[in-house]
Amino acid sequence: MAFLANPRYRGGLAGSQAAAVVLGAADADAAPMPVLVARDPYASFARIAALFEHAPERPAGIHPSAVVAEGARIDPSAHVGAQAVVESGASLGARSIVGPGCVIGPGCVVGEDCELVARVTLVARVRLGDRVRIHPGAVLGAAGFGLAMEDGRWINVPQLGGVVVGEDCEIGANTTIDRGALGDTVIGEDVRLDNQIQIGHNVHIGAHTAMAGCSAVAGSARIGRYCLVGGGAGILGHLEICDRVTITAMSLVTRSISTPGEYSSGLPLQDNRSWRRNAARFKRLDDMARTLDRVAKDTDDT
Amino acid sequence: MAFLANPRYRGGLAGSQAAAVVLGAADADAAPMPVLVARDPYASFARIAALFEHAPERPAGIHPSAVVAEGARIDPSAHVGAQAVVESGASLGARSIVGPGCVIGPGCVVGEDCELVARVTLVARVRLGDRVRIHPGAVLGAAGFGLAMEDGRWINVPQLGGVVVGEDCEIGANTTIDRGALGDTVIGEDVRLDNQIQIGHNVHIGAHTAMAGCSAVAGSARIGRYCLVGGGAGILGHLEICDRVTITAMSLVTRSISTPGEYSSGLPLQDNRSWRRNAARFKRLDDMARTLDRVAKDTDDT
Amino acid sequence: MAFLANPRYRGGLAGSQAAAVVLGAADADAAPMPVLVARDPYASFARIAALFEHAPERPAGIHPSAVVAEGARIDPSAHVGAQAVVESGASLGARSIVGPGCVIGPGCVVGEDCELVARVTLVARVRLGDRVRIHPGAVLGAAGFGLAMEDGRWINVPQLGGVVVGEDCEIGANTTIDRGALGDTVIGEDVRLDNQIQIGHNVHIGAHTAMAGCSAVAGSARIGRYCLVGGGAGILGHLEICDRVTITAMSLVTRSISTPGEYSSGLPLQDNRSWRRNAARFKRLDDMARTLDRVAKDTDDT
Repeated sequence: MAFLANPRYRGGLAGSQAAAVVLGAADADAAPMPVLVARDPYASFARIAALFEHAPERPAGIHPSAVVAEGARIDPSAHVGAQAVVESGASLGARSIVGPGCVIGPGCVVGEDCELVARVTLVARVRLGDRVRIHPGAVLGAAGFGLAMEDGRWINVPQLGGVVVGEDCEIGANTTIDRGALGDTVIGEDVRLDNQIQIGHNVHIGAHTAMAGCSAVAGSARIGRYCLVGGGAGILGHLEICDRVTITAMSLVTRSISTPGEYSSGLPLQDNRSWRRNAARFKRLDDMARTLDRVAKDTDDT
Repeated sequence: MAFLANPRYRGGLAGSQAAAVVLGAADADAAPMPVLVARDPYASFARIAALFEHAPERPAGIHPSAVVAEGARIDPSAHVGAQAVVESGASLGARSIVGPGCVIGPGCVVGEDCELVARVTLVARVRLGDRVRIHPGAVLGAAGFGLAMEDGRWINVPQLGGVVVGEDCEIGANTTIDRGALGDTVIGEDVRLDNQIQIGHNVHIGAHTAMAGCSAVAGSARIGRYCLVGGGAGILGHLEICDRVTITAMSLVTRSISTPGEYSSGLPLQDNRSWRRNAARFKRLDDMARTLDRVAKDTDDT
Repeated sequence: MAFLANPRYRGGLAGSQAAAVVLGAADADAAPMPVLVARDPYASFARIAALFEHAPERPAGIHPSAVVAEGARIDPSAHVGAQAVVESGASLGARSIVGPGCVIGPGCVVGEDCELVARVTLVARVRLGDRVRIHPGAVLGAAGFGLAMEDGRWINVPQLGGVVVGEDCEIGANTTIDRGALGDTVIGEDVRLDNQIQIGHNVHIGAHTAMAGCSAVAGSARIGRYCLVGGGAGILGHLEICDRVTITAMSLVTRSISTPGEYSSGLPLQDNRSWRRNAARFKRLDDMARTLDRVAKDTDDT
């Protein structure tokens, strides 16, 4: 079972060992095997593949090894797994799953049909909408990096806000989302965060935005809707990015962006010897530009 | 309740909905609401905000679900949370908190008034000073990346040292600090590490240095006091950085630094089309420099 | 006890306080203390240091606080630590150690003589070869970042594959390795992954390759054997890197590499003022190149 969404790979159909292929009508003739014609082959493939997915059994109820505080509210249809901890005042909605080893801190709210796969930590003042899925090792609601220097020593700025996660979000393994300093850190609905992403305090991420692994957003930045952030990209704090902006992998956003489109920084890969020569010249690029200005002026004058 | 520390935001005072604002004497006139005048508004705000912080209840004693080895020494005023593990020979000082799901490895020492929020792991030979706070998912004392190649296969170099963390340090969520290979990895007092930072074996970080999220330091580097390391920045191994150095976000430090000041690498963000054109030219920058030298010489000669 | 592997440090022998030094025959004369002459001093040092390593006691058997599902197969010589969870259908080979707080998901297979140090998560369809060591916080087998956009909303592409880890691999603290979408994510034998590395779904990493901390590989990339990837480096998806390629720290690999050797991108560190001047010029590098072409042509014509 395979799919063809990118016409670039059309030539591979003939040699494919797939028993059936999901593809668009225009590609149906190129396939020697049975085909399923779909308007959007990748999305249709996703729906078919879901039929083959075996989720682990997570029956309603609280595992005997779990520790649930007296004040916690657990819907009877929810699952609390082995070795999990649910602290006082926390609540867990219908059919939600708290997998093995998770810690749900005091007062945290989990919506309906959520899945915290395993070893997820909600620290404090975290509120999850419905159908949120969080992968192992993720930490939401930790105290962010708020520091003031006084007489040569750091003092902590208390982080009194929370984290609000909208419906249908997905949060990757070992990703961290700090709670707000005064207001909340806000993740809009249907936001998709890959693994090992860092979201600073008071960041707002607009609905349907997707960020790839190891990207990071510093405190109080606001990211629009339908943005795509490449792997390892960084976004500095206190700036604003409008809707439908794409940032390519490992770029650093150092200023606000008010025009949709694709943005980049960074340099192309080269063999180390060529790179060394070019990089050394970069350190004198301003001098080069001044010399060039002078020479161009001289040449134009003659 | 708000604060004004940066004069750039002074214009926002008039429109603020804050019931009261902490600010410097020079800005007091610009505020229509009640003000608290402070020498250092941000630090004063931090102290006021602390009055509103509700820490979760962590009463003295060992939660019945925790596993504490026979040889461990737990001060009677300390708290060991649900599902935590404290192994043989470990010790925990007065009023310290080991939150839910933490693992304190054999022989690790936690000082007084420390807080390991939840799911923190101290692997081996970790010694924390007093008042150290560590956020969930952090791993201290894992065996660092010590490898030797022999006959085409890697062999491990045993990591016999430990990790020493000074007083008043803060260590962010999912940050990792490897133990030393022979000597110790040393984090000076009042060092502040944000989330997802990687500190290699035998690194030394000087007192009062602060590092932002996703930055990393390779093995045996030595960083001075009062340094500031931006998010995502990297510091190569076996080099030395003096006191009061600032590294901007996502820069790579490839050599020792002996003069205080601010240092950067990386490139500014551009729209992808402009960036592609410029980046392609970078690959021939050395050729450009040679051509320019020749042309400038010709022009100067005529 | 010390070693001398790099002749650059030969001058330090005289001042060393080591009681004995492992070194090559050529350096033996320069050492005032007792020496052990070895063909490969670093590898020999590693073997000697191993004699001084004290592993924590991990006796055969299942800790009473661990939760082991009925259908799990645990070799009688294996150790399952405090608060660990082993789910249905999982199996654990002879002499393997599952440390405190680990979660072994349904159907995951751990070979012989493995060590999962603490708080490791194997989510689903993970198969470890023999002698694999995994450090705390690592997450293997989470559902990767598979998304399709349909009518303005993301839908998940089910991740039906697994993770296969070869013999003698080491996986660092808080590293994440996603399971494959259809086939498996494959880590070859003797691969060494440092801390906080992200490996996307369906990546293949060849035997004996080593990757330093915070590096990342996007989905479906194939990396050869005996490669070295520097800290913080990124490798884009769907590309191929041949054997014996070295990528320097924080470089981004944006294309396939078919020739062994060393590759780089990125820029050298400068003081911030110089860097700002040069970086500003970079934004007009293409214009500079055009001007230079014109000027060079004019000069050559005269």
